[in-house]
Amino acid sequence: MRLYWSPVELASRLARKGMRYNFASGAPDPGLLPIDELRRSFERVYEEYGKAIIAYPGAGGLRELRIELSRYVGRTLGINTNWRDIIITAGAQHAIKLLSQLLMRRRTTVYVEDPTFVETVAPMRFQGARLIGVPVDNEGMNTHELEKLIKKYGPGIVYAVPNCHNPTGVSLSMDRRKHLIEIAKEHGLIIIEDDPYTSLYPNTEPTLKSMSNDVIYVGTLSKVLGPGLRIGFVVVNGVLRNDLEKLEQHDFAASTLSQYLVYDMLRRGVANDVIKRARELYPRKLKELISALDEYLPNALMYRPHCGFYAFINTRVNAWELLRKSVRQGIVFVPGGRFFINRRLENTARLSIGSISIDLIKEGVKALSDIIMAT
Amino acid sequence: MRLYWSPVELASRLARKGMRYNFASGAPDPGLLPIDELRRSFERVYEEYGKAIIAYPGAGGLRELRIELSRYVGRTLGINTNWRDIIITAGAQHAIKLLSQLLMRRRTTVYVEDPTFVETVAPMRFQGARLIGVPVDNEGMNTHELEKLIKKYGPGIVYAVPNCHNPTGVSLSMDRRKHLIEIAKEHGLIIIEDDPYTSLYPNTEPTLKSMSNDVIYVGTLSKVLGPGLRIGFVVVNGVLRNDLEKLEQHDFAASTLSQYLVYDMLRRGVANDVIKRARELYPRKLKELISALDEYLPNALMYRPHCGFYAFINTRVNAWELLRKSVRQGIVFVPGGRFFINRRLENTARLSIGSISIDLIKEGVKALSDIIMAT
Repeated sequence: MRLYWSPVELASRLARKGMRYNFASGAPDPGLLPIDELRRSFERVYEEYGKAIIAYPGAGGLRELRIELSRYVGRTLGINTNWRDIIITAGAQHAIKLLSQLLMRRRTTVYVEDPTFVETVAPMRFQGARLIGVPVDNEGMNTHELEKLIKKYGPGIVYAVPNCHNPTGVSLSMDRRKHLIEIAKEHGLIIIEDDPYTSLYPNTEPTLKSMSNDVIYVGTLSKVLGPGLRIGFVVVNGVLRNDLEKLEQHDFAASTLSQYLVYDMLRRGVANDVIKRARELYPRKLKELISALDEYLPNALMYRPHCGFYAFINTRVNAWELLRKSVRQGIVFVPGGRFFINRRLENTARLSIGSISIDLIKEGVKALSDIIMAT
Repeated sequence: MRLYWSPVELASRLARKGMRYNFASGAPDPGLLPIDELRRSFERVYEEYGKAIIAYPGAGGLRELRIELSRYVGRTLGINTNWRDIIITAGAQHAIKLLSQLLMRRRTTVYVEDPTFVETVAPMRFQGARLIGVPVDNEGMNTHELEKLIKKYGPGIVYAVPNCHNPTGVSLSMDRRKHLIEIAKEHGLIIIEDDPYTSLYPNTEPTLKSMSNDVIYVGTLSKVLGPGLRIGFVVVNGVLRNDLEKLEQHDFAASTLSQYLVYDMLRRGVANDVIKRARELYPRKLKELISALDEYLPNALMYRPHCGFYAFINTRVNAWELLRKSVRQGIVFVPGGRFFINRRLENTARLSIGSISIDLIKEGVKALSDIIMAT
C-alpha cells in the first residue's frame, strides 16, 4: 500500500492558524476570491433552477456548465473543443486520480518532471505506476533526456505541468513543446497536461492541448473561483472520453450545487473579471518574491520562475528542521524533498505566493533568511 | 477494463424529461428537499465564515461537520463514535469507491447480497474483486448460505445493505444480524454496511455498526438534505481510518461549501425536521406501492419490502423491452437483470417510490400492469 501524507498537508498542520507568512498554501489570493459574486450566483440559480441545484448530478456533468466551459477554454486557453468532450470532475486532483485509475496499472511507465507535484503523483503511485523522473531546467522538462529515457524504459504516459510548473515555476519552451508532441506521436505516448495556472498570467505559452488534440487536458476553476467548490474538468476525446465518463460514475463526486454556481459565474463573466485582476496581481507577487530572494537569499533560487505560484529554493539546511524553526516565527512553507522522483534533495523548499499578501512577501523572505543565516 | 453504464443511468436516459410516473429514480421526494433552508444556511455560513466556505477542504473533512455528524449518528442510528472516526466523503458512492480501492485487489473475495445494488458494486468490479452472490429472502441476506460459501471461497469482505435493501426492500432479521457478526468474527471478515435509508423510517432494525464496532459504516446525507450536495461519510476506526483519510486526499472531492451547508443544516435541526416528515411520508408511499402491486400485478413482488425506496418485481416479460414500451406511456423504472450476481433474471424490475408523487403511484402501477397484460 502506497499511502502517505502530502508534505503540503503536513506543513499546514505544523502551521495551523495564525501564520503571518504563509508560503505553503497553493490556494489563490483571498482578495481575488469572488465570494460576493458566489452569493449572488446562489440567489440566481436558486431562483432559476430551484430544487434541481441539489438533484443528483448527471453523467459527464451539467450540460450548461460543459457548454460554458467549452467557450472558456476556447477564449482563455486556445482550446477548441466540443462541449461533449469536456468531463466535469470534483477538482483537478480528482481528475488526475480518475485518469490514473483509467490508464495506470502495476508497473505502467509514467514520465514526470523531476521535481514534480507530490500530490498529483500520489494516485499514480497508488496504482502501482513506475514513475520515471525527467530532469527539469529553466526551459521546463528536458525533452532530449525524455527521449533517452524512453529508449531505456519504453513507451508510456507523460504527466506534465508545461505552464507555470509546480514546484519550480518554469514553463516549457516552445521548441520543447513541439519536440514533446513529436516524441509522443513517434512513440505512441499519452500526454496528460495538468494546467491550473495558465489562465492567471498574461502572455503564457500556448497549452499543449491547443497544439495537439491527442493531449489529455486537465483544467480547474479552483484557482479562479475558489478551491472549495471542487470543480475541475478534463478535455479528452474518443474512447478515453467514454471510459472516463463511465469511471466518473463510480463516485460522481462533483457537487451539483457547485456545478450550477460555477456555470452561473462563468456565464456572468465573473471568472473573466477575476482572471483580469489575477493577471495584474500574480505577476507582481511573483516578481516581488523573486526580487526578495535575490536580495536576501542570493543564489537560493534553483530555477527562474516564469509564472504560476511557486519558487523552488535551496535552503542549505534540512528543510523540515528549518520549517520547525520558521513556524515559531510565523513562517510556513513546504519542504521540497518529497517533490523529487530520483534523488531527494532535503535542503530544498517550495515557496508559494498564492495566498500570502503581496505586502508581506519581502518581509517574510527576509525573516526566513535571518533564520537560515542563524542556523 | 470493467466499465459499463449503470442501468439506472440508462433507464433515466431512455426517459429524460416529462415522465409522469418515475419509478426509476433513487432520489428523495422533492417535497422533502429543504431548498429554502439550504438558502438560509448559505446566508448563515456566508455571514459567519466568509471566504472559508470556498477554501480547500481539510483532510478527513470539516471538523465542525464531523462533530455534528457524530451526534447525528448517535441519535438517529444508535452509533456511538468519536468524531475523529468519521471521514467525510463526496457522497456514499464515493465512500464505497474509496473503500473498494483500499480493501480490494484482483480476485479479492467480496460477498454481496444477490441481487445487490449495481452501482455500488461497479467500483468493486473495477478493482477486479471476485463478487460472490449470497441469496436474499424476506429476512435479508441468508447468512447460513454465506457460511457455506465461505467454506468454498474462503474469507473476504462482506458488502451489505442490511436495512431497507436496494433493490429488494427487505431488512436483515435480528437473528441473522447476530449470526453475520458472529461469522465475521469467526472468519475474520470485514463488513461494509451501506446504509442510506435507515434514518428515513421509524422502528427500523439497529444498524450493524451499533452492534459491532468492527463494522465499517457508510452513511449519507443525500436522501435527507439533497443528493446534489454530495456529502456522505464513513465511520471507521484504527488503521483503516488512517488509510482512508490518506486515500481520500488523492481526490479530496467533497465540496467545502457543501460541508458547511450540511453542517449548518445539522446544527439547526433541519435534518431532524426532514427525517420527521420522511418517517411519515415514505412508509405511506411504500405501502401504497405494495397495495397497488397486490391489486394490479398480484404475485409480481419477489420480496416483501420492509422499508427504503424499492420493490423488486417479476415483470414476466423482458424488462428492457417493457421499459421501451412503458416510456411511451410516461412510465420509467430500472430493469432488474443487472442487479443480479449469479443468474441474471431479465424479467425483473426495480420500482422506486423515491421521487414519484404518492398520488401517482397507484395510477402508475395500473398503467404498467396494462402494458404487461397487453404484451
